[in-house]
Amino acid sequence: MLTSASSKSKAILICVGSELLRGKLNTHASHIARRLASIGLTLDEEHTVGDELGQITQAIRQGLNSYPIVFLSGGLGPTFDDISREAAAEATGCPLWRSKALMNGIKAKFRRAHFKMPDMNIRQADLLQGAEVIENRFGTAPGQWIKFSDSQVLVLFPGPPRELYPMLEDFVLPRLKRMYPRRPMAESHMHFVNVPESIIDSKVRPIIARAQKTPGVEVQFTILAQINLVDFDIFVSAAKLPLAQKVLARIEHEVRRASAGTWYGSNMDYPLEKVVGDLFRKRRASLALAESCTGGMLAARLTDIAGSSEFLQAGWVTYSNAAKVRDLGVPAQLIRAHGAVSEPVARAMAQGARKAAQTDVGLGITGIAGPGGGSPGKPVGLVYIALATEKRVSSQRFEFSGDRSSIRQRAVLAALDILRKI
Amino acid sequence: MLTSASSKSKAILICVGSELLRGKLNTHASHIARRLASIGLTLDEEHTVGDELGQITQAIRQGLNSYPIVFLSGGLGPTFDDISREAAAEATGCPLWRSKALMNGIKAKFRRAHFKMPDMNIRQADLLQGAEVIENRFGTAPGQWIKFSDSQVLVLFPGPPRELYPMLEDFVLPRLKRMYPRRPMAESHMHFVNVPESIIDSKVRPIIARAQKTPGVEVQFTILAQINLVDFDIFVSAAKLPLAQKVLARIEHEVRRASAGTWYGSNMDYPLEKVVGDLFRKRRASLALAESCTGGMLAARLTDIAGSSEFLQAGWVTYSNAAKVRDLGVPAQLIRAHGAVSEPVARAMAQGARKAAQTDVGLGITGIAGPGGGSPGKPVGLVYIALATEKRVSSQRFEFSGDRSSIRQRAVLAALDILRKI
Repeated sequence: MLTSASSKSKAILICVGSELLRGKLNTHASHIARRLASIGLTLDEEHTVGDELGQITQAIRQGLNSYPIVFLSGGLGPTFDDISREAAAEATGCPLWRSKALMNGIKAKFRRAHFKMPDMNIRQADLLQGAEVIENRFGTAPGQWIKFSDSQVLVLFPGPPRELYPMLEDFVLPRLKRMYPRRPMAESHMHFVNVPESIIDSKVRPIIARAQKTPGVEVQFTILAQINLVDFDIFVSAAKLPLAQKVLARIEHEVRRASAGTWYGSNMDYPLEKVVGDLFRKRRASLALAESCTGGMLAARLTDIAGSSEFLQAGWVTYSNAAKVRDLGVPAQLIRAHGAVSEPVARAMAQGARKAAQTDVGLGITGIAGPGGGSPGKPVGLVYIALATEKRVSSQRFEFSGDRSSIRQRAVLAALDILRKI
Repeated sequence: MLTSASSKSKAILICVGSELLRGKLNTHASHIARRLASIGLTLDEEHTVGDELGQITQAIRQGLNSYPIVFLSGGLGPTFDDISREAAAEATGCPLWRSKALMNGIKAKFRRAHFKMPDMNIRQADLLQGAEVIENRFGTAPGQWIKFSDSQVLVLFPGPPRELYPMLEDFVLPRLKRMYPRRPMAESHMHFVNVPESIIDSKVRPIIARAQKTPGVEVQFTILAQINLVDFDIFVSAAKLPLAQKVLARIEHEVRRASAGTWYGSNMDYPLEKVVGDLFRKRRASLALAESCTGGMLAARLTDIAGSSEFLQAGWVTYSNAAKVRDLGVPAQLIRAHGAVSEPVARAMAQGARKAAQTDVGLGITGIAGPGGGSPGKPVGLVYIALATEKRVSSQRFEFSGDRSSIRQRAVLAALDILRKI
């Protein structure tokens, strides 16, 4: 069926579901692109269509005309508007048949959950001729793997991420790896903090483009950016692993130099809060937090990592001046003289938290998250972060841009960055 | 150019950018779908392609063949891989010309930011013949509005949401409203908490489907779901407003009945933390929080709303038992006898927070977020939430499913739900 694929085009993702065109957020392309890159494949196109037989059929047909790997997600449920199976049959010419084994499996799933299988779920046992079943451990809709040739495959996935992701991981990626064997590959997962995404975009792309010109080497990358945080994955393959590693090392070196101190690690799955947690645990140090404008966000972030109780002894959300005085021992006179958002108060908060919780380190944050509360001398976005240890107290002044939520998030990241640099 | 549009097909969105196929999350379809629905239009298809002239050109051509409204986002920047303008010229046959006025405007923007305009930015002054310029208040790439007939338009947007969204709001939506005038419309924005999305999907769709059969009435809806939270927008239009309102009221009534107490409001932009905040402010009541397993997430959520300092007096993150005893006055004996995750400790935390901060209401959360720490009697996901007021202390036991992050989020939502029901 493949009529016009170039050697570089690899995969298309077709997302089926009217809800995806009615406001529901779709994260499949982001996830699948990153997972494909990990085995040296690329996602080259994504297409979202509603629950309409004609639309789905046409999308599959077009996909099979141009791509060796066609993923489809959604429309495998039991209700009348779940019609991806029928569309796939129509587009490929492979008729549907009802698998008794599959039907019994679905019935058994319902039995285990103490439900009777509704009649409509029978349709989930319909398989395309020649399809292999992809087991769904987290739902009733099985996936289907239909291999047309040594180089072309159509994969039907259910829509929910918690069902799709394990099927991709356990069944699909290992097979694709065998179908499209890669040369030895070196990979890196670089993380950056307090860097605008546009800087990474503008500085990293030319570095990659240069590396891609190295003879005999293939370079792939994915970027995932949140506010002031960028994850950058690089995959380099070559005939011999040392060459791939050499090119990767050069890319990493250039990217680190271009990103001026914002790089903080290259492990897989390495959020900044984990870096801080690992650091405190390794040093057996304890931490107390006093948050004003971030209102508990920093504590929430650190406790998102399991095991944070080993070092995070206590946190205070001292939104009111009274709480700052009562719980942290900030002198009321200090607040009167300098205002609650000031360097001296941030320092007193850090010291107060450290003292009250008897920890090695105390951190205090006070700022103006807005939208109200700003003034010419103290604009919205002004944030002080102070760090107290046994020996000394330090503090930093920031002026963050953006709305209330961005300012708060940037303050939390800046605080994590200060903690990791201790 | 429109060759095959059905009367119901309205808009397609073409997203351009290889980064969208390299892991970057794309939220345009979700946002644009909801904004189109607000003026009675639908998004019927979304298509993401890389920075390749052929791919972009083909996508625009296909879009114009089938849809009266074709949106394109991305590829309007100044660099060599920004080629959406060229693709649009090729697909439509409208040649590009360089607008001197536009060029001067872009130069002026750079001057105001104290930069010299790089030569490559000149390309951003290239306009399709017949295009109107859409001013970009937050970046250098202007948008373009190319109207081919009274019923067909191609709109070029820059990719960044903070540039695209205002252009959509200020320029595009008002014009589309005039191009496709709607009959009178009634709308509702329903919010639900602690409800799995699948329930809303399965119960709400049939209600909408029934309403859509009412003669002379058009019903549109969008759904946006996060963990245990669902926003459901409904738009009903008819020749006369009273009929639209009547049908809308019936839908709302049926949906509220089907959602059994999980509905909490129908205002636009009404997150649960705002409901709680409004309630506390209206009653001039004050609140103190004691969080263990949620580690500050509840405080962070409440303080995300500006003005929360009026009622949220203090928050404690008492991850350690020592902090529970020292800061909240939880009897050490109680922790020894029942464990830190227990109903008596949750109650003592709520009372302790209320007493220490001298507030009207105190709330305590303790639980096992996992992945470790569970036991047969106290499984991962077990959470106690207690509420203390002057007159009484109440508490609830929950067993939440999911991973650490989901359990924590569900606990926060359950706590907000308890606060709003006071």
